[in-house]
Amino acid sequence: MHIYPFLQAVRDQRPLVHHITNWVTIFDCAQIVKSFGASPVMAHAPEEAADMTGIASALVLNIGTLTTELVESMKRSAQAANRKRIPVVLDVCGAGATPYRNQKSQELLAASTIDVIKGNASEIASIAGLPAETKGVDTGLVAADLAAVARDLAARRQCIVVVTGAEDLVASADRVVRVGNGHPIMANVVGTGCMAASTLGAFVAASPDRLADAVTAGLVCYEIAAERAAQHATGPVAFKQRLFDEAFALDEQAVEPRQRVTLG
Amino acid sequence: MHIYPFLQAVRDQRPLVHHITNWVTIFDCAQIVKSFGASPVMAHAPEEAADMTGIASALVLNIGTLTTELVESMKRSAQAANRKRIPVVLDVCGAGATPYRNQKSQELLAASTIDVIKGNASEIASIAGLPAETKGVDTGLVAADLAAVARDLAARRQCIVVVTGAEDLVASADRVVRVGNGHPIMANVVGTGCMAASTLGAFVAASPDRLADAVTAGLVCYEIAAERAAQHATGPVAFKQRLFDEAFALDEQAVEPRQRVTLG
Amino acid sequence: MHIYPFLQAVRDQRPLVHHITNWVTIFDCAQIVKSFGASPVMAHAPEEAADMTGIASALVLNIGTLTTELVESMKRSAQAANRKRIPVVLDVCGAGATPYRNQKSQELLAASTIDVIKGNASEIASIAGLPAETKGVDTGLVAADLAAVARDLAARRQCIVVVTGAEDLVASADRVVRVGNGHPIMANVVGTGCMAASTLGAFVAASPDRLADAVTAGLVCYEIAAERAAQHATGPVAFKQRLFDEAFALDEQAVEPRQRVTLG
Repeated sequence: MHIYPFLQAVRDQRPLVHHITNWVTIFDCAQIVKSFGASPVMAHAPEEAADMTGIASALVLNIGTLTTELVESMKRSAQAANRKRIPVVLDVCGAGATPYRNQKSQELLAASTIDVIKGNASEIASIAGLPAETKGVDTGLVAADLAAVARDLAARRQCIVVVTGAEDLVASADRVVRVGNGHPIMANVVGTGCMAASTLGAFVAASPDRLADAVTAGLVCYEIAAERAAQHATGPVAFKQRLFDEAFALDEQAVEPRQRVTLG
Repeated sequence: MHIYPFLQAVRDQRPLVHHITNWVTIFDCAQIVKSFGASPVMAHAPEEAADMTGIASALVLNIGTLTTELVESMKRSAQAANRKRIPVVLDVCGAGATPYRNQKSQELLAASTIDVIKGNASEIASIAGLPAETKGVDTGLVAADLAAVARDLAARRQCIVVVTGAEDLVASADRVVRVGNGHPIMANVVGTGCMAASTLGAFVAASPDRLADAVTAGLVCYEIAAERAAQHATGPVAFKQRLFDEAFALDEQAVEPRQRVTLG
Repeated sequence: MHIYPFLQAVRDQRPLVHHITNWVTIFDCAQIVKSFGASPVMAHAPEEAADMTGIASALVLNIGTLTTELVESMKRSAQAANRKRIPVVLDVCGAGATPYRNQKSQELLAASTIDVIKGNASEIASIAGLPAETKGVDTGLVAADLAAVARDLAARRQCIVVVTGAEDLVASADRVVRVGNGHPIMANVVGTGCMAASTLGAFVAASPDRLADAVTAGLVCYEIAAERAAQHATGPVAFKQRLFDEAFALDEQAVEPRQRVTLG
């Protein structure tokens, strides 16, 4: 698959990507979007959330530090996004950890159409209704099972399901694509998962008519930037700082030969 | 104009600069104030906001991720600052993007005396009552018009109006000063605008009787630190990290020959 | 005292450390915990705070940007921690600055058992009921007095009291340990105090039966990481980035010969 045109589309269009996200990695979410060439905007007041979505090209929701009021703003924004027909990405950060988090995740899924659901194996298993480990990604699912769970969830929800891990899955109702890019050091830094979701927001904003491919391209670009950053890093936080700037500098030669996308 | 004494005053007095700001760049706002030698404090509970302002030497308000409750705290703090006669800086971050944001900005301006209003061309045009582009700084105003808009707003509000851009304007009722320092890489990092406003807070805190000059000096110091950081940076985020440390290390020799301040 | 086994315990157990903390340094709190090998989780909604504590091995509370709702969540989480018999660390950030902050600190102490209270000299003096300077650490207390105040507070509250400064005190009812590690550059960076408290959370989570020693070991490891980071740093923010990665890389040879722990 040809990856670079999707990055080029982000840089050409500089789409506005509205976020309602968590307070831990809110800067990281904004900066990775900017580093890839899009324009981040963060606004969560219930009185303006839908209006801000109304001028954006995609919406990213992240429940990392959710509250009831924040989820209310997320619903309003997601509904505004649906009306405007712009894509909605939901990072189900921490799903499975508490009953409240599960309930609010399901409320978000019921209140609007979510175009991309993203989580690690444990979180996606939880959203799919399986019993989930709350800590770490060890759900006890073998890889083949996980792909089936993701594809089934994608079919039921009519959306793309992204499962991040050593190998990422991008599941649609009819197929599963695997992305083998990335680097183990990412697990030692806070925010790499959130930044992945925000990256997807930038890529689907620029290519809304090719959702699954845009998601795959976004993951590949993000994780190749990570691979390049890891080459220079003296430690996890040095790696993360560099990751932003590798995303900013990514060119076609860096991307195409390095992509590790496989079907199935 | 002699810039360095204003920085020296910040470092000598280490003034407490109270912020009620946004959740995206709240760390950056605090760190830039600390890097310039002042003491940042962030406190937004409505029950304590005014008390915290009461022990500070300046107040910085930033509406980036405003909520109704946060604006209520801002009003109380601004009124406390007025009573104590310490300067208030308002960063009208995102003004023009939503009706709610415009309404809350006007409420803040009506509820208290704001000493310094800071925004990009689009945001200032919106505050001044002109139709504003919400995305980017392209307001369609030519530079001369922008200066007139800023000076007129300064005259009406009896305050300093700062318009940031490739060239910054510092407008009082009777004159406009232009600051030509800075670096284009700043546009690729989240938070450079917010940090500029926080820097102004530190400088007016230390020199409250010379507001316009303190604002100009703050802008010049911040942007010369940026110029120096850009020399070493391998990318936008590496630049930003370095910017803090260049602000910390700035000395008279680095500042005076490099300042690009012009009248008119 | 043998320090390294306490760090090894954190890395072996990877304990979940639940935080309800401030919005300025929330990323730093999470990252330092992760850099030391534990798993941070941040969740503050009153509806889920206690549940999240219920799956954690320690709770860290930090009142830096407290609100009434946030303190309510803190109380619920602290009570859940008490029921589960996992340690609670309270960073009394800014205590003494406003009446509201003092009142809420006392409410937290009254509502549950806090195992570790951590602050600078001014904050601890305020919590102990002495008149406190709100800005800086100059309480007018000589070192010997400060140790007496800390030990007395520890005895009254049946807890460990940590007073950070050029030399840190770890006070129990029956003894005071001094930690002489650290570096002056820490004072020029936002978040070093908050990160210290979060580090303590990781260490007491892994060694809950040896609270005082775990606290001392945590302080020593954190401050030796700081010493090592300072050797490489070109400025305060470069130092802070490096601090995370030195914490991640710390080994026995780096820790044991360098520890500066004294009794009394």
